[in-house]
Amino acid sequence: MNPETMTPELVQYNLNVVWTLIGGILVFTMQAGFAMVETGLTRAKNAANIMMKNTFDFVMGSIAFFLVGYALMFGNDAASGGFCGLTGFGMTFTPDEHGMSESWDWTLMFFQTMFAATAATIVSGAVAERTKFTAYLVYSVLISLLIYPIYGHWAWGGGWLSELGFIDFAGSTVVHSVGGWIALAGAIMLGPRIGKYRPDGKPVAIPGHNMVFATLGVFLLWIGWFGFNPASTVAGNGSISRIAMTTNLGAAGGAATAMITSWILFKKPDLSMSLNGALAGLVAITAPCNNVTLPAALLIGLISGVLVVGSCLFIERILKVDDPCGAVSVHCVNGVWGTIATGLFGAEAILGTGEANTGLFYGGGWHQTLVQLAGAGTACVWAFGLGLLMFYAIKKTIGLRASREDELKGMDLAEHNNDAYAGFQIFVTE
Amino acid sequence: MNPETMTPELVQYNLNVVWTLIGGILVFTMQAGFAMVETGLTRAKNAANIMMKNTFDFVMGSIAFFLVGYALMFGNDAASGGFCGLTGFGMTFTPDEHGMSESWDWTLMFFQTMFAATAATIVSGAVAERTKFTAYLVYSVLISLLIYPIYGHWAWGGGWLSELGFIDFAGSTVVHSVGGWIALAGAIMLGPRIGKYRPDGKPVAIPGHNMVFATLGVFLLWIGWFGFNPASTVAGNGSISRIAMTTNLGAAGGAATAMITSWILFKKPDLSMSLNGALAGLVAITAPCNNVTLPAALLIGLISGVLVVGSCLFIERILKVDDPCGAVSVHCVNGVWGTIATGLFGAEAILGTGEANTGLFYGGGWHQTLVQLAGAGTACVWAFGLGLLMFYAIKKTIGLRASREDELKGMDLAEHNNDAYAGFQIFVTE
Amino acid sequence: MNPETMTPELVQYNLNVVWTLIGGILVFTMQAGFAMVETGLTRAKNAANIMMKNTFDFVMGSIAFFLVGYALMFGNDAASGGFCGLTGFGMTFTPDEHGMSESWDWTLMFFQTMFAATAATIVSGAVAERTKFTAYLVYSVLISLLIYPIYGHWAWGGGWLSELGFIDFAGSTVVHSVGGWIALAGAIMLGPRIGKYRPDGKPVAIPGHNMVFATLGVFLLWIGWFGFNPASTVAGNGSISRIAMTTNLGAAGGAATAMITSWILFKKPDLSMSLNGALAGLVAITAPCNNVTLPAALLIGLISGVLVVGSCLFIERILKVDDPCGAVSVHCVNGVWGTIATGLFGAEAILGTGEANTGLFYGGGWHQTLVQLAGAGTACVWAFGLGLLMFYAIKKTIGLRASREDELKGMDLAEHNNDAYAGFQIFVTE
Repeated sequence: MNPETMTPELVQYNLNVVWTLIGGILVFTMQAGFAMVETGLTRAKNAANIMMKNTFDFVMGSIAFFLVGYALMFGNDAASGGFCGLTGFGMTFTPDEHGMSESWDWTLMFFQTMFAATAATIVSGAVAERTKFTAYLVYSVLISLLIYPIYGHWAWGGGWLSELGFIDFAGSTVVHSVGGWIALAGAIMLGPRIGKYRPDGKPVAIPGHNMVFATLGVFLLWIGWFGFNPASTVAGNGSISRIAMTTNLGAAGGAATAMITSWILFKKPDLSMSLNGALAGLVAITAPCNNVTLPAALLIGLISGVLVVGSCLFIERILKVDDPCGAVSVHCVNGVWGTIATGLFGAEAILGTGEANTGLFYGGGWHQTLVQLAGAGTACVWAFGLGLLMFYAIKKTIGLRASREDELKGMDLAEHNNDAYAGFQIFVTE
Repeated sequence: MNPETMTPELVQYNLNVVWTLIGGILVFTMQAGFAMVETGLTRAKNAANIMMKNTFDFVMGSIAFFLVGYALMFGNDAASGGFCGLTGFGMTFTPDEHGMSESWDWTLMFFQTMFAATAATIVSGAVAERTKFTAYLVYSVLISLLIYPIYGHWAWGGGWLSELGFIDFAGSTVVHSVGGWIALAGAIMLGPRIGKYRPDGKPVAIPGHNMVFATLGVFLLWIGWFGFNPASTVAGNGSISRIAMTTNLGAAGGAATAMITSWILFKKPDLSMSLNGALAGLVAITAPCNNVTLPAALLIGLISGVLVVGSCLFIERILKVDDPCGAVSVHCVNGVWGTIATGLFGAEAILGTGEANTGLFYGGGWHQTLVQLAGAGTACVWAFGLGLLMFYAIKKTIGLRASREDELKGMDLAEHNNDAYAGFQIFVTE
Repeated sequence: MNPETMTPELVQYNLNVVWTLIGGILVFTMQAGFAMVETGLTRAKNAANIMMKNTFDFVMGSIAFFLVGYALMFGNDAASGGFCGLTGFGMTFTPDEHGMSESWDWTLMFFQTMFAATAATIVSGAVAERTKFTAYLVYSVLISLLIYPIYGHWAWGGGWLSELGFIDFAGSTVVHSVGGWIALAGAIMLGPRIGKYRPDGKPVAIPGHNMVFATLGVFLLWIGWFGFNPASTVAGNGSISRIAMTTNLGAAGGAATAMITSWILFKKPDLSMSLNGALAGLVAITAPCNNVTLPAALLIGLISGVLVVGSCLFIERILKVDDPCGAVSVHCVNGVWGTIATGLFGAEAILGTGEANTGLFYGGGWHQTLVQLAGAGTACVWAFGLGLLMFYAIKKTIGLRASREDELKGMDLAEHNNDAYAGFQIFVTE
């Protein structure tokens, strides 16, 4: 079955492949999770459109990342002066070009395809219920093709951020805040949904049409995160269990405080906020999942749950930006928080994983936190800046926002000639 | 990637970690499954509340089990005279305190967190549609904090039941009947839902609002059980496949006879009963999954399907206890059945896994069956007794049952100010 | 934990077991996916019936394949002159009867049980909304008991097709077109649903009742396919990642062109067609997933997406066969396409997996393509022929189609006395 001479090293290599591949499959599960959360938290008249979007950001992203993105991220960057990889487009690496066997290249490409698609999907929730499908296709391809891979090269592909000592173990910044910044750019450029704000500027709640879908989506995302974080070791060994534990405690902490915060503010424990709290905790623990102790992971999660509720209210009520699913608060705000937390709580000395990169609270001083801020700030400039530019360009060319008429009757009928719930009577609201 | 010197033993250790961790992730999937089954089998007006409950028994359970439960279950029990562990709270074990490496402790804690949360979730179905959310939070924390870990210590943590030779390979008793007995206590203390019984005492069917959710939930549970049982080896080796096969045959057997029984009794094959039959088979095969032959596994499942239908009718019509999802019949009754079946069908001699613990039907006499009865009976006294006490204490302090008004308008609006299906017209029944 | 002396070979064996078992669990996930796709694309009045069908083809198939099917497929075929295995019924193989350890037999049986059940489930979509439940039980048992295992023996159990050099790595033919041909036979024998065709022969669209379910189902199937294809190596090694990549590119390609084709034909990008495009790509890449380059995989997928749309329209409008979910176009047509594509695009020389079986476009001449056509043609004769015979026999004995009255009021009420969505008002259409 395995013709090669078996050595412990080869079997461990095979185990690493199996574990990383399973991790990638788990991350793929998050696509289903995002789709369910987004449709659950929005209206029935846009459900089929959201299914189209979430299917096709993955479809287009998979093709774009295979043809171009992976090469920009992991190719040899000498020709670009370190800006991005420029070899290996369409998986045409010469043997050993970047010191990987061919089978490891496939493994990493599979795993990273799922990450690139996640970054693209994050944006979807913020621009829901009012974006033209053609515009959606264009921008989501650009994320997997360019925006994600180039930042990814800097942080994970041997680029300048990794040389600076920036730590983002599984992607609080690389995936989540990059996606979250683009989401913010998109929500700003689109403007709010019709009826979201009253003439006096007061926001109006637009309730989601299926809270069971939203909750199922969060469970699927949570499941997927057990691949996202622990399999970012790309190695099957004892450390993956600590990462699974920090991941779970981060999520639990975020959900707990988001629920309590909503209970205090709204007098009743709120399901949407609680769900976003779990996601906030997951996003926040993603960068530090391998570098912090279990109690620190719980604390990072507990803080994230307060942050996400505060951020949702701030964005809705003060900034007056309409983000239907809270994507900016979950992914951008908590992506930044998790990245900074890695600088504060990094506990390499305690964990026995080295001495470098120890955080502020464990005697490492401000150094690592400043490096983390540099990485988070770079993501803001890169992703928010390019996001604004990209959405502006789309707006001025093919158009970004659906017509008023289409938005009112729902994207399902308007864009896809589809009724997501045939046989059920649905009250279409503004 | 793996700096240590590679030996076959180390690679096997790493494989054990990977397999057990994946098993834990699969068991986590069961949380989504339980949520879908419970909401599917109950009314639309309580769907968001059920999502809250199923999210937060896991959230609170994860934190409680990390801080306290794991130590009670696997800590050193010398100071308590063997009653429960009393070292390692919050994962502060000294090296080698219980002969485990740190990474194995994390692995086991992750896996066991999922089990503890499962025990808590089981109760949810029996107390659905009428329990105050605060009461729910309190009792579900107590299960993960105390009730599950202490019984778990006796059976799996080196305590007196394990010394007696009690076999519960993956937890028919430790997880399922413990959860099921507490469920029965809860359903009794709460009383039936408004409208469940006519003035003359005849039960009224209260149909579930989404049979697709219920079925999806059963599929998710079935998937999760392929982690629950086979990964209870906590080792990746050839035996896991036999366990996967016994698990699947148990489930298939239970579904088959539950369907046939419902067909005979009700004249048509019933979906709810069939789904509960699959779950009953899964629960029943959980204890003996590693100790019986494949034909015995099928037979255990076939019996469980008849038991679950009979038990549902008995509890509803004779005991007049209102268990909306059949949790007691699935988890308690079949947990007991599976535990006894281990004593009857244990086939160690045939399976080549040893000579001890051979069951009645393979020439081992009554010994193992009596030990199994002792374990099952202990679970009854411990979990049902503490359950009654706990629910009584909650009733007399913070209150257990929602007000009549809240129950009638639905827990979603009353407890969470939420409409789970905005835009859809729902006929709210008693 | 592992009492045997550890060698690299043993650890690799254990890794192979773990990987294959996880693959089987992923394939089981497809059962949930099929259920969600089928119910999503059909009417609410038949949802519970579809849940029953999809549960019980798996339940009955698991038992039948354990007792009989596995022996027919992998038993010793000497006594039947090579037609099918005739030893090992009910897993009673003598040691080493077919050169496998007992634990490998369990592993393979678990994995293959999931495949057999997939073949049976495929048929369900084509016969939806009008088949008697008893008829459904009978024919789905026959598939797992006889039709799938005997063809499987020829292709995968050492039979004549494998000796001929037929390549169907993960089952485009063995599973998908076998299932698809039986589906076509069933749809023909049943005739169209009431109201599907106007008196003048024009087809009427019967929209599905939940497009979110349908999309979630496709995601679940996609997840499952990452077990179906990569774990068909039944070995955990570097090659699984290339297979995961070809699988994903096939799916993405199929979805992309199906969407574009629907956009051209219907003026709007269609969700149902796009989803079927993803499935078509997955089916098509199943046979060649281990034998083609990544760009070829993408191309095979791109072609499949056009094929599936064309086939759906051809079957509905020209053949006037009513296949509610497009099962024939997805599984049969693209199963054949993938099987032929293996002969065209086989690139063993490039992939370094051998010289034999190189396809037409890589200098291997027509040989392999002709062998592939022989295998695909055999499946047509065997599965379509037996399918017609089987459905005819059922029609003449217990009856195949529900009464007109039952079909109109819905199979849920008629067959199961069930309302899948209690509390929701549903407009029952013809």
